[in-house]
Formats: sequence, C-alpha cells, structure tokens
Amino acid sequence: MDLTETFLDGEQIFDGHLLQVRRDTVRLPDGATATREYVRHPGACVVIPELRPGVFIFERQFRYPVGEVFIEFPAGKRDAGEALLVCAQRELKEETGYVAAQWTHLGRTHNCIGYSDECIEIFHATQLQQLGQSLDAGEFVELFEMTLDEAEAAVRDGRITDAKTITCLFWARQLAR
Amino acid sequence: MDLTETFLDGEQIFDGHLLQVRRDTVRLPDGATATREYVRHPGACVVIPELRPGVFIFERQFRYPVGEVFIEFPAGKRDAGEALLVCAQRELKEETGYVAAQWTHLGRTHNCIGYSDECIEIFHATQLQQLGQSLDAGEFVELFEMTLDEAEAAVRDGRITDAKTITCLFWARQLAR
Repeated sequence: MDLTETFLDGEQIFDGHLLQVRRDTVRLPDGATATREYVRHPGACVVIPELRPGVFIFERQFRYPVGEVFIEFPAGKRDAGEALLVCAQRELKEETGYVAAQWTHLGRTHNCIGYSDECIEIFHATQLQQLGQSLDAGEFVELFEMTLDEAEAAVRDGRITDAKTITCLFWARQLAR
Repeated sequence: MDLTETFLDGEQIFDGHLLQVRRDTVRLPDGATATREYVRHPGACVVIPELRPGVFIFERQFRYPVGEVFIEFPAGKRDAGEALLVCAQRELKEETGYVAAQWTHLGRTHNCIGYSDECIEIFHATQLQQLGQSLDAGEFVELFEMTLDEAEAAVRDGRITDAKTITCLFWARQLAR
C-alpha cells in the first residue's frame, strides 16, 4: 500500500520568535483530504563526546517547556546555511568548551514526527581538548562525566528521559560492542 | 548552581486545531529575563508490543511533517482526562488490533524539550491477542514483525530514525539482558 499523503494547499499560520507553524491540506491514501499542522524546524545536531574510552561528557540544563533540569548530550539548532559538522563542532565548543580532533557522523533521529519536521544529526566526537565554554546569553549549562554503564542506569531509574540523549546512548552501546 | 528559570508573565499566542503555542517571559538564573516559546501537549503513550519472546510488532506510517514513511512502535496522544494505561491500551488496540493481558510501565521520555512539554509514557505489552484494527479516520498503518536484533540493525542502517522508537529499543534491550 502507498501510505503517502500529498500536499494540496497550505500556508504558514504562525510566525513566532522561535517557532514557525504551517497548516497544510493533504490528500490521504484513500483519496480523502485532511489537515496537517506542524512546526518547521531548521534541523539540529547532537554530539556524543567521548572524553576517554567509555567516559562521556554530559550536561545539566533547565528546559523551560517541561520545567525540569535535564541530563543531555550537547546539542543545538543549525544556523541558516550552516553545514552539519560545523554546527556540531560549534555546539560542542560553545556548551562544553571542548574541541575534538576526530568526528564521526553516526546517523540521524527524528524526535517529533507527529508535529515537527525536526531532524537531529548524531555525531561521535573523540580526542577532546578543553579550550573553555562560550555559552550564548541566557544559556546555563553544568558539565559532568558518566560512563556508558552509569548513563544506562540513569535511564533505567528515570534520571535521563531526553529522547535524543537515550538515542545517543543506543548508538554508544552499538559502538562499544 | 540553581539552573531554574522562573515564570514572570505569559500567554497563549497561537491556538490551532492541533497545536497550542505559549510565549512566556522568564527570569534566568543570573536575574536577566528571556522569552520562551513552546508547544503545549497533552502527553502521549508508546507501546512495546512483544508478540513472542524477542519478537515485536512494528508499524509503518507516513508522517506528513517529515514527508516520509516511518517505522515506529504504536503510539498516540492522550485524550482529555484519560489514564495513561487506558491510553496505551486504546492506541495498541486501534492501531494494531491487539489486546494484551500483561502491561508494565517502564518509564517515560521527553522527545522535544527545546520547544514542547510533551511527555511520552513507555509501556511493555505481552500476552497479546489479535482482535482487529480500528484505525481513526485518516489513519493508515501497516503492521509487521521484527526481532530486537533486526530492529537494532535497522537503527544502525538508518531505516529506523524515530526517537521514541529508538528509546523503546533501548528499553527492550535492557529487559532482554
């Protein structure tokens, strides 16, 4: 069966400081029409920074939409026209102060397919060197280290719930096998 | 350091058919103020349906915001006032036709902490019995089975990129250990 939904008509219906929302009318596989409302996102990168074999750098950051401090890998939104690797390198440096000599693109994840086109590219960074954080204004990040086993235990006991970070731990475990 | 950002003022700035967007002014840890724009979401459930030991039911579904067919575990949004387990049972039955005699709540994941308060509760369903799909109007879902090894391979080669599904595969691997 062809599951594709086809664009018929649409428009941007909300243009915020951060969020842009579109509403499209689509043709469904059975010929009926439906409305699809979703966020347009420029894309993002997340970095798995491996400081020493099996030891990773994590961040604690308050995430206002949920109202909680989250344990995360470094991540951030792509600037307009920015290459994926450049975005990953910039976010790692800004948020953690580290630069990495070795970068590997592992894959990508879509974190919100119900109502956003966001795609997050996943990078593994090794051979790290500390050069000093340069956080954006209004950005507050605490750094700490965990092993892969410790991070997996933190998922099991509910301390890590961020989906992109759990996705990265999935990848880190695949690399460790 | 206290990383908390505190609500000062705010309002709903967009009220769509599906999406509600708020814009709040917050006090940052250093006393400065900032604007936070985000989607309000009622919450969701995702189900890991284990048909036989080590064999899981997956869906193929077209996701219009991204414009691709995704491989996913069954999931869906909570109805107003609906209990989490009831939501999980309803979504599994509607999308796959299965009911399960055994349900375990494993944990939760936040899939979009940058701009949504969405929280997805993760359930493991076993002792399944097929009673027939009852999809919502405009919903088109294909079902198929994979082992955990096959699903992990599908993440590695890029066929599975959905973050909630990869998060569930993380949990399924923890259960299998």
